[in-house]
Amino acid sequence: MSSDLSGLRAQIDRIDGELIQLLAQRARMTAAVGEHKSAHGLPLYVPERETELLAARREAAAAAQVSPDLVEDVLRRVMRESYATQDARFPATGDLSRPVVIVGGHGAVGRCLGTFFARSGYPLRTLEKDDWGHAREALADAALVLVAVPIDRTCAVIRALPELPADCVLADVTSIKAAPLQAMLDRHAGPVVGLHPMFGPDVGNLAKQVIVVCHGRGQPQYRWLLEQMAVWGAVLRDESPVQHDRAMVLIQAMRHFTSMAYGAFLQRQGADLQELLRLSSPIYRLELAMVGRLFAQSPALYADIIMAAAHLPELLGDYRQTLDDLLQLVRDGQRDALIERFHDVQGYFGELAPALLRESSELLRKAHDSRDPVRG
Amino acid sequence: MSSDLSGLRAQIDRIDGELIQLLAQRARMTAAVGEHKSAHGLPLYVPERETELLAARREAAAAAQVSPDLVEDVLRRVMRESYATQDARFPATGDLSRPVVIVGGHGAVGRCLGTFFARSGYPLRTLEKDDWGHAREALADAALVLVAVPIDRTCAVIRALPELPADCVLADVTSIKAAPLQAMLDRHAGPVVGLHPMFGPDVGNLAKQVIVVCHGRGQPQYRWLLEQMAVWGAVLRDESPVQHDRAMVLIQAMRHFTSMAYGAFLQRQGADLQELLRLSSPIYRLELAMVGRLFAQSPALYADIIMAAAHLPELLGDYRQTLDDLLQLVRDGQRDALIERFHDVQGYFGELAPALLRESSELLRKAHDSRDPVRG
Repeated sequence: MSSDLSGLRAQIDRIDGELIQLLAQRARMTAAVGEHKSAHGLPLYVPERETELLAARREAAAAAQVSPDLVEDVLRRVMRESYATQDARFPATGDLSRPVVIVGGHGAVGRCLGTFFARSGYPLRTLEKDDWGHAREALADAALVLVAVPIDRTCAVIRALPELPADCVLADVTSIKAAPLQAMLDRHAGPVVGLHPMFGPDVGNLAKQVIVVCHGRGQPQYRWLLEQMAVWGAVLRDESPVQHDRAMVLIQAMRHFTSMAYGAFLQRQGADLQELLRLSSPIYRLELAMVGRLFAQSPALYADIIMAAAHLPELLGDYRQTLDDLLQLVRDGQRDALIERFHDVQGYFGELAPALLRESSELLRKAHDSRDPVRG
Repeated sequence: MSSDLSGLRAQIDRIDGELIQLLAQRARMTAAVGEHKSAHGLPLYVPERETELLAARREAAAAAQVSPDLVEDVLRRVMRESYATQDARFPATGDLSRPVVIVGGHGAVGRCLGTFFARSGYPLRTLEKDDWGHAREALADAALVLVAVPIDRTCAVIRALPELPADCVLADVTSIKAAPLQAMLDRHAGPVVGLHPMFGPDVGNLAKQVIVVCHGRGQPQYRWLLEQMAVWGAVLRDESPVQHDRAMVLIQAMRHFTSMAYGAFLQRQGADLQELLRLSSPIYRLELAMVGRLFAQSPALYADIIMAAAHLPELLGDYRQTLDDLLQLVRDGQRDALIERFHDVQGYFGELAPALLRESSELLRKAHDSRDPVRG
């Protein structure tokens, strides 16, 4: 009996060995594809090619009686690795004879974006607070001035900029857009565009990352910049600055604020976090992680996102009122009314609710794959 | 130039074809391992074997200059598939000559657990509301009576049970534990144990799923039941009923309530959910999914979890107070005090915050793998 098992396990060992060799071969091939693309100025990430390839592999999997979902998941994970290693060089879409100047280029976001400009061969300059005395010279021949300073200083820094060359592109990467865009339009008569990169500075590459674009003035003159970000793999989304800011208060500021409040609430309760984790199934572990992860990040960054959000106090007032209304139903033991209210919101979410359930459940299965029950 | 690229792509096609064949072979081997284990009464899931295997594969990956993380992620995904297909039969640890009776066996949780008892060969009976007239006969020779009815009826159903055989195990699977356990101890003089399976009824198998165990009376007589659940792959966690219930209000009821309130708040704002998703990076998409997924599920189930949570109104009062205190800082523009408060909670989370950040970021990378930017 145990020899049967040993025999089967030896076979599995052999298969896994071959699997690793295949992954090594595949990595060499995709690296060669990346070099070829760099050399010929082709975009790194081509969504259609990826979609086609996965559809073909799913068919092949079904034919071999292997789960198509399994094959797709494995290949997507392998592709992530190849994007991460393919990004050595990127072709440039702009003029390489004039510098890109990142104001606040030593900050996390500025450094991250600077790396990409440098990889595409742009002469790169950074301008920090201490360099302000030399700002005029630093910006005199700039092709692009990119403002990447903390959110609470963005508008002041824009207003303090010296005169830029008439054809220089002025852009910012702040997470609010209406006020900085207006400040840029006021300061500079040339091409102006507001950008909001929707990712943290720790992403290794920009494949599939979203950047929101708020058009200012002179789009033909900054088209090269948008094309450049697309070459790096980013997905661009046009949005009006006012719409963007309204949405971001709901997407970012309200979530950060309520998560911060939940963390402070757990502290106030003296909850034993290790015990909560020990008893948590993957879904509740993730709920706690969404709160806990906030407190591993920069307090000043989150304070600034929260303080800069227009109308946040009014929105929080509405949220509190919603909370109170529901709580009253619980206090009064009105189970039917609570269910009625639930149905009501269900109608608002519509088809999106089951779609988000499926999506997050699949993610939880992936979280569960990696879970080591010994660690809890 | 395009012929170079075609050549490389043909190689990638060939490699992927071989990969699919290897996955098919591996599935046949693990299915054979599963059959062997079933036939010899060996447990399906052996954490130590999994840990050893992964450590060996990581070394082999490093030697082949492939990312060890990539190989581990791929193999964990492959293992999930093999657990899902290995579970055809499970050896039994209890007496197969007397029936397991699931009260509420037609409900989602009852059906899910019933499948596992049936697969291990136990004679299975279910008892529903309409069958109550025959309860005495149905339970007369039971080895185990498992109460799996909705949370608001659990205690009443337990009290209404007829006399059970003296050595029959009485257990429940409700998500609160103190009151049902007391009701069971009052009703039955024999072995009693409270269980809380920490997973939804849609899990395909129990490998690594957590079940909380609250010991009642006569542990030697229900040891077979705990062993049985371990054979199915579950991880058992002992907990006192009071501790369990306190933790669950924080883990489940408060989170469900605040998520429900956030969904109702978004509706009240008339927020365009599709636009929010279009602008969301993976982390914010997940935040929205954690709210939206709630509304794809049973309103009655969530209402009952919320209504059954002792002290929920007091806890929500504390949460509201925390929210108000923080909001006052925002209203007063007290940035430094807000940062101070943030640091304070940071101290409470300690080392857990960066650990949860790492864990959830890795999960977000996996979410990002599967993201199709065309769909948004």
